Amino acid sequence: MTDNLKRYRIILASGSPRRQELMKELGIQFETIVKDDVDETYPPTLNPKHVAEYIALQKSRAYAAEVMQGNTLVVTADTVVVCDTRIMGKPFNAKEAVSMLRTLSGKTHRVVSGVALTSADKQVSFSVKTKVTFRTLDDRDIRYYVEHFRPLDKAGAYGIQEWIGLVGIDHIEGSYHNVMGLPTQRLFAELRNF
Amino acid sequence: MTDNLKRYRIILASGSPRRQELMKELGIQFETIVKDDVDETYPPTLNPKHVAEYIALQKSRAYAAEVMQGNTLVVTADTVVVCDTRIMGKPFNAKEAVSMLRTLSGKTHRVVSGVALTSADKQVSFSVKTKVTFRTLDDRDIRYYVEHFRPLDKAGAYGIQEWIGLVGIDHIEGSYHNVMGLPTQRLFAELRNF
Repeated sequence: MTDNLKRYRIILASGSPRRQELMKELGIQFETIVKDDVDETYPPTLNPKHVAEYIALQKSRAYAAEVMQGNTLVVTADTVVVCDTRIMGKPFNAKEAVSMLRTLSGKTHRVVSGVALTSADKQVSFSVKTKVTFRTLDDRDIRYYVEHFRPLDKAGAYGIQEWIGLVGIDHIEGSYHNVMGLPTQRLFAELRNF
Repeated sequence: MTDNLKRYRIILASGSPRRQELMKELGIQFETIVKDDVDETYPPTLNPKHVAEYIALQKSRAYAAEVMQGNTLVVTADTVVVCDTRIMGKPFNAKEAVSMLRTLSGKTHRVVSGVALTSADKQVSFSVKTKVTFRTLDDRDIRYYVEHFRPLDKAGAYGIQEWIGLVGIDHIEGSYHNVMGLPTQRLFAELRNF
Protein backbone atom coordinates (compact mmCIF):
# COMPACT_ATOMS: atom_id res chain seq x y z
CA MET A 1 0.00 0.00 0.00
CA THR A 2 2.87 2.31 0.81
CA ASP A 3 5.82 0.89 -1.10
CA ASN A 4 7.57 4.26 -1.27
CA LEU A 5 7.92 4.20 2.53
CA LYS A 6 9.85 0.93 2.66
CA ARG A 7 13.16 2.73 2.22
CA TYR A 8 12.52 4.86 5.31
CA ARG A 9 12.86 4.20 9.00
CA ILE A 10 9.74 6.04 10.20
CA ILE A 11 9.75 7.66 13.62
CA LEU A 12 6.55 8.84 15.26
CA ALA A 13 7.66 11.64 17.57
CA SER A 14 4.70 11.51 19.92
CA GLY A 15 3.96 9.98 23.28
CA SER A 16 0.20 10.11 22.65
CA PRO A 17 -1.27 6.59 22.78
CA ARG A 18 -4.07 7.79 20.44
CA ARG A 19 -1.56 8.83 17.76
CA GLN A 20 0.38 5.58 18.12
CA GLU A 21 -2.84 3.59 17.78
CA LEU A 22 -3.93 5.53 14.68
CA MET A 23 -0.53 5.12 12.98
CA LYS A 24 -0.74 1.39 13.66
CA GLU A 25 -4.24 1.19 12.19
CA LEU A 26 -3.01 2.97 9.07
CA GLY A 27 -0.80 -0.07 8.56
CA ILE A 28 2.43 1.91 8.74
CA GLN A 29 5.59 0.40 10.22
CA PHE A 30 7.10 2.86 12.67
CA GLU A 31 8.89 3.27 15.95
CA THR A 32 8.20 5.83 18.63
CA ILE A 33 10.83 8.19 19.98
CA VAL A 34 9.72 10.90 22.37
CA LYS A 35 12.02 13.79 23.32
CA ASP A 36 11.43 16.08 26.25
CA ASP A 37 13.50 19.05 25.11
CA VAL A 38 10.97 20.41 22.64
CA ASP A 39 10.14 24.09 22.43
CA GLU A 40 6.35 24.33 22.29
CA THR A 41 6.12 28.11 22.47
CA TYR A 42 4.81 30.12 19.53
CA PRO A 43 4.71 33.82 18.64
CA PRO A 44 1.74 35.41 20.45
CA THR A 45 0.70 37.17 17.24
CA LEU A 46 0.39 33.90 15.30
CA ASN A 47 -3.12 33.18 14.03
CA PRO A 48 -4.54 30.35 16.21
CA LYS A 49 -5.25 28.22 13.14
CA HIS A 50 -1.51 28.15 12.29
CA VAL A 51 -0.26 27.30 15.77
CA ALA A 52 -0.48 23.50 15.56
CA GLU A 53 1.52 23.32 12.34
CA TYR A 54 4.05 25.80 13.74
CA ILE A 55 4.59 23.65 16.83
CA ALA A 56 4.78 20.46 14.73
CA LEU A 57 7.62 22.09 12.75
CA GLN A 58 9.30 23.25 15.97
CA LYS A 59 9.15 19.73 17.35
CA SER A 60 10.90 18.35 14.27
CA ARG A 61 14.04 20.35 15.20
CA ALA A 62 14.59 18.12 18.21
CA TYR A 63 15.05 15.16 15.84
CA ALA A 64 17.90 16.60 13.77
CA ALA A 65 20.28 13.84 14.85
CA GLU A 66 17.87 11.08 13.75
CA VAL A 67 17.09 12.81 10.46
CA MET A 68 20.79 13.13 9.71
CA GLN A 69 21.05 9.34 9.63
CA GLY A 70 19.74 9.55 6.10
CA ASN A 71 16.91 7.12 5.54
CA THR A 72 14.79 8.45 8.37
CA LEU A 73 11.37 10.09 8.17
CA VAL A 74 10.16 11.81 11.34
CA VAL A 75 6.45 12.48 11.92
CA THR A 76 5.81 15.29 14.39
CA ALA A 77 2.35 16.52 15.28
CA ASP A 78 0.49 18.90 17.52
CA THR A 79 -3.21 19.39 18.22
CA VAL A 80 -4.84 22.54 19.57
CA VAL A 81 -8.39 23.39 20.55
CA VAL A 82 -9.53 26.85 19.46
CA CYS A 83 -12.63 28.27 21.11
CA ASP A 84 -13.74 31.87 20.49
CA THR A 85 -10.29 32.63 18.93
CA ARG A 86 -8.62 31.49 22.18
CA ILE A 87 -6.27 28.50 22.23
CA MET A 88 -6.90 25.89 24.90
CA GLY A 89 -3.97 23.77 25.93
CA LYS A 90 -3.91 20.91 28.42
CA PRO A 91 -5.53 21.71 31.79
CA PHE A 92 -3.17 22.08 34.77
CA ASN A 93 -5.53 20.35 37.17
CA ALA A 94 -9.06 19.00 37.60
CA LYS A 95 -10.43 22.43 38.43
CA GLU A 96 -9.16 23.90 35.17
CA ALA A 97 -10.46 20.86 33.28
CA VAL A 98 -13.95 21.51 34.65
CA SER A 99 -13.66 25.17 33.70
CA MET A 100 -12.55 24.33 30.12
CA LEU A 101 -15.47 21.95 29.62
CA ARG A 102 -17.89 24.60 30.91
CA THR A 103 -16.46 26.94 28.28
CA LEU A 104 -16.90 24.39 25.49
CA SER A 105 -20.44 23.43 26.60
CA GLY A 106 -23.22 24.34 24.16
CA LYS A 107 -20.79 25.73 21.58
CA THR A 108 -18.92 24.90 18.41
CA HIS A 109 -15.13 25.01 18.59
CA ARG A 110 -12.37 24.08 16.19
CA VAL A 111 -9.70 21.42 16.60
CA VAL A 112 -6.59 21.87 14.48
CA SER A 113 -3.94 19.17 14.11
CA GLY A 114 -0.67 20.15 12.49
CA VAL A 115 1.77 17.58 11.13
CA ALA A 116 5.32 17.81 9.81
CA LEU A 117 7.07 15.07 7.81
CA THR A 118 10.81 15.53 7.89
CA SER A 119 13.63 13.65 6.16
CA ALA A 120 17.25 14.63 5.44
CA ASP A 121 16.38 16.31 2.15
CA LYS A 122 12.72 17.22 2.44
CA GLN A 123 10.11 18.66 4.75
CA VAL A 124 6.34 18.73 4.23
CA SER A 125 3.88 20.23 6.70
CA PHE A 126 0.14 20.72 6.76
CA SER A 127 -2.76 21.18 9.13
CA VAL A 128 -6.34 20.00 9.18
CA LYS A 129 -9.31 21.60 10.93
CA THR A 130 -12.41 19.93 12.35
CA LYS A 131 -15.42 21.73 13.81
CA VAL A 132 -16.80 20.09 16.97
CA THR A 133 -20.13 20.93 18.61
CA PHE A 134 -20.90 20.10 22.23
CA ARG A 135 -24.53 20.09 23.36
CA THR A 136 -25.13 21.92 26.64
CA LEU A 137 -23.42 19.79 29.26
CA ASP A 138 -24.89 19.15 32.72
CA ASP A 139 -22.46 20.19 35.40
CA ARG A 140 -22.80 16.76 37.01
CA ASP A 141 -21.68 15.19 33.71
CA ILE A 142 -18.65 17.47 33.52
CA ARG A 143 -17.63 16.65 37.08
CA TYR A 144 -18.27 12.91 36.58
CA TYR A 145 -16.07 12.91 33.47
CA VAL A 146 -13.19 14.87 34.97
CA GLU A 147 -13.19 12.72 38.10
CA HIS A 148 -13.31 9.36 36.30
CA PHE A 149 -11.29 10.08 33.17
CA ARG A 150 -8.70 12.66 34.40
CA PRO A 151 -8.29 14.38 30.99
CA LEU A 152 -5.20 16.33 32.05
CA ASP A 153 -3.17 15.10 29.07
CA LYS A 154 -5.68 16.40 26.54
CA ALA A 155 -5.99 19.81 24.89
CA GLY A 156 -9.38 21.29 25.81
CA ALA A 157 -9.75 18.69 28.61
CA TYR A 158 -11.62 16.08 26.60
CA GLY A 159 -11.11 13.00 24.45
CA ILE A 160 -13.73 12.74 21.72
CA GLN A 161 -13.50 8.94 21.93
CA GLU A 162 -14.19 8.93 25.68
CA TRP A 163 -17.47 9.05 27.63
CA ILE A 164 -17.90 12.83 27.40
CA GLY A 165 -17.44 12.66 23.62
CA LEU A 166 -20.05 9.92 23.25
CA VAL A 167 -22.69 11.63 25.40
CA GLY A 168 -21.82 15.28 24.75
CA ILE A 169 -20.86 15.66 21.08
CA ASP A 170 -23.66 15.28 18.57
CA HIS A 171 -22.06 16.97 15.59
CA ILE A 172 -18.67 17.35 13.97
CA GLU A 173 -17.68 18.68 10.58
CA GLY A 174 -14.47 17.29 9.17
CA SER A 175 -12.25 14.40 10.24
CA TYR A 176 -13.02 12.57 13.49
CA HIS A 177 -9.52 11.15 13.86
CA ASN A 178 -8.10 14.63 13.46
CA VAL A 179 -9.80 15.48 16.77
CA MET A 180 -8.13 12.41 18.31
CA GLY A 181 -4.77 13.84 17.22
CA LEU A 182 -3.97 12.77 13.66
CA PRO A 183 -5.66 13.67 10.37
CA THR A 184 -5.33 10.08 9.17
CA GLN A 185 -6.63 10.50 5.61
CA ARG A 186 -4.41 13.48 4.82
CA LEU A 187 -1.42 11.97 6.62
CA PHE A 188 -1.71 8.73 4.66
CA ALA A 189 -1.94 10.61 1.37
CA GLU A 190 1.07 12.80 2.24
CA LEU A 191 3.13 9.80 3.34
CA ARG A 192 2.31 7.96 0.15
CA ASN A 193 3.45 10.96 -1.90
CA PHE A 194 6.53 11.68 0.19
CA MET B 1 -25.58 9.39 35.71
CA THR B 2 -28.65 7.46 34.66
CA ASP B 3 -30.51 6.77 37.88
CA ASN B 4 -33.85 6.50 36.08
CA LEU B 5 -32.56 3.39 34.30
CA LYS B 6 -31.80 1.44 37.45
CA ARG B 7 -35.34 0.07 37.62
CA TYR B 8 -35.00 -1.46 34.15
CA ARG B 9 -33.40 -4.60 32.87
CA ILE B 10 -31.92 -3.21 29.64
CA ILE B 11 -31.61 -5.48 26.64
CA LEU B 12 -29.53 -4.51 23.63
CA ALA B 13 -31.10 -6.40 20.75
CA SER B 14 -28.09 -6.37 18.45
CA GLY B 15 -25.30 -8.76 17.57
CA SER B 16 -23.07 -5.94 16.35
CA PRO B 17 -19.86 -5.82 18.39
CA ARG B 18 -19.62 -2.07 17.59
CA ARG B 19 -23.02 -1.40 19.16
CA GLN B 20 -22.17 -3.50 22.20
CA GLU B 21 -18.90 -1.63 22.64
CA LEU B 22 -20.58 1.79 22.34
CA MET B 23 -23.31 0.88 24.86
CA LYS B 24 -20.57 -0.24 27.26
CA GLU B 25 -18.66 3.01 26.80
CA LEU B 26 -21.82 4.96 27.55
CA GLY B 27 -21.62 3.36 31.00
CA ILE B 28 -24.98 1.61 30.67
CA GLN B 29 -25.60 -1.77 32.28
CA PHE B 30 -27.20 -4.09 29.75
CA GLU B 31 -27.39 -7.61 28.44
CA THR B 32 -27.45 -8.70 24.81
CA ILE B 33 -30.18 -10.89 23.35
CA VAL B 34 -30.17 -11.48 19.62
CA LYS B 35 -33.14 -13.03 17.82
CA ASP B 36 -33.00 -14.44 14.33
CA ASP B 37 -36.70 -14.26 13.48
CA VAL B 38 -36.80 -10.56 12.74
CA ASP B 39 -38.62 -9.15 9.73
CA GLU B 40 -36.23 -6.66 8.12
CA THR B 41 -38.35 -5.90 5.08
CA TYR B 42 -39.88 -2.46 4.55
CA PRO B 43 -42.43 -0.99 2.17
CA PRO B 44 -40.69 -0.22 -1.14
CA THR B 45 -42.32 3.22 -1.22
CA LEU B 46 -40.86 4.23 2.16
CA ASN B 47 -38.53 7.25 1.99
CA PRO B 48 -34.96 5.88 2.45
CA LYS B 49 -34.36 8.23 5.37
CA HIS B 50 -37.19 6.56 7.33
CA VAL B 51 -36.15 2.97 6.67
CA ALA B 52 -33.71 2.51 9.58
CA GLU B 53 -36.24 3.69 12.18
CA TYR B 54 -38.96 1.54 10.57
CA ILE B 55 -36.77 -1.56 10.81
CA ALA B 56 -35.74 -0.72 14.39
CA LEU B 57 -39.45 -0.65 15.29
CA GLN B 58 -40.06 -3.91 13.41
CA LYS B 59 -37.22 -5.55 15.31
CA SER B 60 -38.78 -4.57 18.63
CA ARG B 61 -41.78 -6.82 17.87
CA ALA B 62 -39.60 -9.90 18.20
CA TYR B 63 -39.00 -8.99 21.86
CA ALA B 64 -42.65 -8.87 22.97
CA ALA B 65 -42.14 -11.72 25.45
CA GLU B 66 -39.22 -9.95 27.17
CA VAL B 67 -41.04 -6.62 27.25
CA MET B 68 -44.08 -8.27 28.87
CA GLN B 69 -41.92 -9.12 31.86
CA GLY B 70 -42.53 -5.57 32.99
CA ASN B 71 -39.31 -3.89 34.04
CA THR B 72 -37.57 -4.48 30.73
CA LEU B 73 -36.34 -1.87 28.26
CA VAL B 74 -35.35 -3.18 24.84
CA VAL B 75 -33.02 -1.19 22.57
CA THR B 76 -33.35 -2.13 18.89
CA ALA B 77 -31.42 -0.41 16.14
CA ASP B 78 -30.76 -0.49 12.44
CA THR B 79 -28.27 1.37 10.25
CA VAL B 80 -28.58 1.97 6.53
CA VAL B 81 -26.32 3.60 3.97
CA VAL B 82 -28.12 5.80 1.47
CA CYS B 83 -26.25 6.76 -1.69
CA ASP B 84 -27.98 8.64 -4.52
CA THR B 85 -31.41 7.83 -2.94
CA ARG B 86 -30.54 4.11 -3.10
CA ILE B 87 -30.26 2.02 0.06
CA MET B 88 -27.17 -0.14 0.41
CA GLY B 89 -27.45 -3.15 2.65
CA LYS B 90 -24.74 -5.63 3.54
CA PRO B 91 -22.81 -7.02 0.57
CA PHE B 92 -23.47 -10.67 -0.35
CA ASN B 93 -19.86 -11.38 -1.20
CA ALA B 94 -16.46 -9.79 -1.76
CA LYS B 95 -17.32 -8.90 -5.35
CA GLU B 96 -20.37 -6.92 -4.29
CA ALA B 97 -18.35 -5.28 -1.50
CA VAL B 98 -15.84 -4.02 -4.08
CA SER B 99 -18.67 -2.76 -6.24
CA MET B 100 -20.31 -0.91 -3.32
CA LEU B 101 -17.05 0.82 -2.40
CA ARG B 102 -16.55 1.85 -6.03
CA THR B 103 -20.01 3.43 -5.90
CA LEU B 104 -19.22 5.32 -2.67
CA SER B 105 -15.78 6.48 -3.91
CA GLY B 106 -15.42 10.23 -4.43
CA LYS B 107 -18.93 10.97 -3.21
CA THR B 108 -20.94 12.05 -0.19
CA HIS B 109 -23.52 9.57 1.13
CA ARG B 110 -25.76 9.50 4.16
CA VAL B 111 -25.75 7.01 7.00
CA VAL B 112 -28.99 6.78 8.98
CA SER B 113 -29.26 4.90 12.27
CA GLY B 114 -32.73 4.30 13.65
CA VAL B 115 -33.30 3.32 17.27
CA ALA B 116 -36.39 2.16 19.17
CA LEU B 117 -36.66 2.04 22.97
CA THR B 118 -39.47 -0.25 24.06
CA SER B 119 -40.89 -1.04 27.48
CA ALA B 120 -44.25 -2.54 28.53
CA ASP B 121 -46.00 0.82 28.61
CA LYS B 122 -43.97 3.05 26.34
CA GLN B 123 -42.16 3.20 23.03
CA VAL B 124 -39.85 5.95 21.75
CA SER B 125 -38.13 5.90 18.38
CA PHE B 126 -35.87 8.26 16.51
CA SER B 127 -33.27 8.35 13.79
CA VAL B 128 -30.08 10.30 13.25
CA LYS B 129 -28.37 11.11 9.97
CA THR B 130 -24.66 11.63 9.26
CA LYS B 131 -23.16 12.74 5.96
CA VAL B 132 -19.97 10.88 5.03
CA THR B 133 -17.58 11.86 2.24
CA PHE B 134 -15.11 9.42 0.70
CA ARG B 135 -12.22 10.81 -1.30
CA THR B 136 -11.64 9.05 -4.63
CA LEU B 137 -10.45 5.58 -3.69
CA ASP B 138 -7.72 3.75 -5.58
CA ASP B 139 -8.96 0.41 -6.80
CA ARG B 140 -5.96 -1.28 -5.16
CA ASP B 141 -7.04 0.23 -1.82
CA ILE B 142 -10.60 -1.08 -2.25
CA ARG B 143 -9.36 -4.58 -3.08
CA TYR B 144 -6.82 -4.53 -0.23
CA TYR B 145 -9.54 -3.52 2.25
CA VAL B 146 -12.12 -6.07 1.10
CA GLU B 147 -9.54 -8.86 1.11
CA HIS B 148 -8.10 -8.09 4.55
CA PHE B 149 -11.14 -6.81 6.43
CA ARG B 150 -14.01 -8.83 4.86
CA PRO B 151 -16.69 -6.15 5.47
CA LEU B 152 -19.60 -8.50 4.66
CA ASP B 153 -21.38 -7.74 7.94
CA LYS B 154 -21.46 -3.99 7.27
CA ALA B 155 -24.01 -1.90 5.40
CA GLY B 156 -22.27 -0.18 2.48
CA ALA B 157 -19.31 -2.61 2.85
CA TYR B 158 -17.20 -0.44 5.14
CA GLY B 159 -16.50 0.29 8.79
CA ILE B 160 -15.63 3.93 9.37
CA GLN B 161 -13.35 2.86 12.25
CA GLU B 162 -11.40 0.43 10.03
CA TRP B 163 -8.49 1.02 7.65
CA ILE B 164 -10.63 2.21 4.73
CA GLY B 165 -12.31 4.76 6.99
CA LEU B 166 -8.99 6.11 8.24
CA VAL B 167 -7.41 6.46 4.79
CA GLY B 168 -10.53 7.12 2.70
CA ILE B 169 -12.85 9.39 4.68
CA ASP B 170 -11.70 12.95 5.16
CA HIS B 171 -15.00 14.56 6.06
CA ILE B 172 -18.18 13.77 7.94
CA GLU B 173 -21.01 16.01 9.07
CA GLY B 174 -22.88 14.83 12.14
CA SER B 175 -22.19 12.05 14.64
CA TYR B 176 -19.25 9.69 14.03
CA HIS B 177 -20.59 6.96 16.31
CA ASN B 178 -23.88 7.08 14.42
CA VAL B 179 -21.94 5.79 11.40
CA MET B 180 -20.57 2.96 13.58
CA GLY B 181 -24.18 2.00 14.37
CA LEU B 182 -25.45 4.01 17.35
CA PRO B 183 -26.14 7.73 17.71
CA THR B 184 -24.62 7.72 21.19
CA GLN B 185 -25.39 11.31 22.20
CA ARG B 186 -29.07 11.13 21.21
CA LEU B 187 -29.45 7.60 22.61
CA PHE B 188 -28.02 8.61 25.96
CA ALA B 189 -30.33 11.65 26.17
CA GLU B 190 -33.38 9.55 25.23
CA LEU B 191 -32.48 6.84 27.74
CA ARG B 192 -32.04 9.41 30.48
CA ASN B 193 -35.47 10.85 29.70
CA PHE B 194 -37.20 7.50 29.28
